[in-house]
Amino acid sequence: MIEQSRAWKREKMRIGLVPTMGYLHRGHVSLIEALRPHVDQLVVSVYVNPLQFGPNEDLARYPRDPDGDAKRCADAGTDVLLMPEDLYPSGFSTSVSVHGVTERLCGAFRPGHFEGVATVVCRLFGVSGCEVAIFGEKDWQQLQVIRRMTRDLALPVEIVGGPLVRDADGLALSSRNAYLSPDERQRALSLSRALYAMIEAVNGGELDAARLVERGRAILQVDRLDYLEVVHPETLEPVARIDGPARALVAGHVGRTRLIDNMALPG
Amino acid sequence: MIEQSRAWKREKMRIGLVPTMGYLHRGHVSLIEALRPHVDQLVVSVYVNPLQFGPNEDLARYPRDPDGDAKRCADAGTDVLLMPEDLYPSGFSTSVSVHGVTERLCGAFRPGHFEGVATVVCRLFGVSGCEVAIFGEKDWQQLQVIRRMTRDLALPVEIVGGPLVRDADGLALSSRNAYLSPDERQRALSLSRALYAMIEAVNGGELDAARLVERGRAILQVDRLDYLEVVHPETLEPVARIDGPARALVAGHVGRTRLIDNMALPG
Repeated sequence: MIEQSRAWKREKMRIGLVPTMGYLHRGHVSLIEALRPHVDQLVVSVYVNPLQFGPNEDLARYPRDPDGDAKRCADAGTDVLLMPEDLYPSGFSTSVSVHGVTERLCGAFRPGHFEGVATVVCRLFGVSGCEVAIFGEKDWQQLQVIRRMTRDLALPVEIVGGPLVRDADGLALSSRNAYLSPDERQRALSLSRALYAMIEAVNGGELDAARLVERGRAILQVDRLDYLEVVHPETLEPVARIDGPARALVAGHVGRTRLIDNMALPG
Repeated sequence: MIEQSRAWKREKMRIGLVPTMGYLHRGHVSLIEALRPHVDQLVVSVYVNPLQFGPNEDLARYPRDPDGDAKRCADAGTDVLLMPEDLYPSGFSTSVSVHGVTERLCGAFRPGHFEGVATVVCRLFGVSGCEVAIFGEKDWQQLQVIRRMTRDLALPVEIVGGPLVRDADGLALSSRNAYLSPDERQRALSLSRALYAMIEAVNGGELDAARLVERGRAILQVDRLDYLEVVHPETLEPVARIDGPARALVAGHVGRTRLIDNMALPG
């Protein structure tokens, strides 16, 4: 892949990357379709990156469907499906860390997660030789981490965010939704409902972040809440009052499944 | 610089980088001259990178000579002299770490040093858009750290090592030699003398690393020795017996000045 991408660059081809962990759904497909018209070579990577999983997380049972992924990629117009057994060379010993935007929200509940993300994404940029890469806004904090890393290291990659895709009932698409029992799925809907309720409350004139969070919490039916917060969309610092750009982010466990969701609040 | 280098790359120009901390001497000039014939745009960076200095090190008094540096760069055929007041954007919060090759030798005596080096070099690669970069073999461990980082992150940069340059009396050229009093300079010569003596001993049939180190130590006239070791040139792991590639590395303090040197042992 490294040799191939270097050759394409010599031929002045524009390479685009869609990094994924596989088990592709319509959210991923929307990212591929969004990038497709803008690049000459479209690379989709499917790699369940062990570096970004904690010791008690779901690395071993993370859902996989290589044949289905290959079909979805082909149908959406992928040029290269990069599906390595191992992405790291023998003796791999480099890591990329981003401070600040990684310390709160998911970073507080998943120590080492964003270091694993930054490291794999940095390497995938290098391997694919991409000039542009697209990431789903479902993983909002991840998108900010990658934007920060790319700016800080002056990596020659344009970062694009792709809109979150939902099922008809409002559930944010996630490969992890495959874990949910029918009852759990009903309760999982409370994440998006809580966020919609917060938007409605802002539209109704409620601008106090603490009271908005209270409104959302009353709706949540998770077994364990990691966080429900109103933050600045880029710095991810808490916002006390909605008087500028703000986003509500939520993470919680339904059964054994950890789910996240987020929405922009009206500004 | 970022915009300029991106434009050069669109024009298919080959960009080369010589990263330095300034106060340029013949060693730096030899790197510029070695790279010059191979690139279309030659960038020399002069930046005393605070990230790679410990709290009790010589950041504040590190020697500077911007006018002399500019002249030396121009004379050696530099296209761009990148001499920023600050290299990092506001809110910079990313770091690159290399494990393994950074833990021993200078890494053990300068905690955080190689993280600072890896981070600045990664950013300089991005800013300059270089396809090739040259580093002096004087900083042998640094060269291995950068090779490892570049391979691990699949950075699109070829790493070249440039031979160490010595004064006629054998002293390895270093900007820090400017700190030395005449007496200190005499004692500083013991570093290269110790290494030469070790080479001679190998040629005389001594293949035991511990005895070679003993031989070198007897010659050293430093005020404090950080290390004198025989290691594998790439992994930097200690070598017990000279039966393959091996290199002797030394670091010690003469007065307030920390000096390093290294030589390949005959194999």
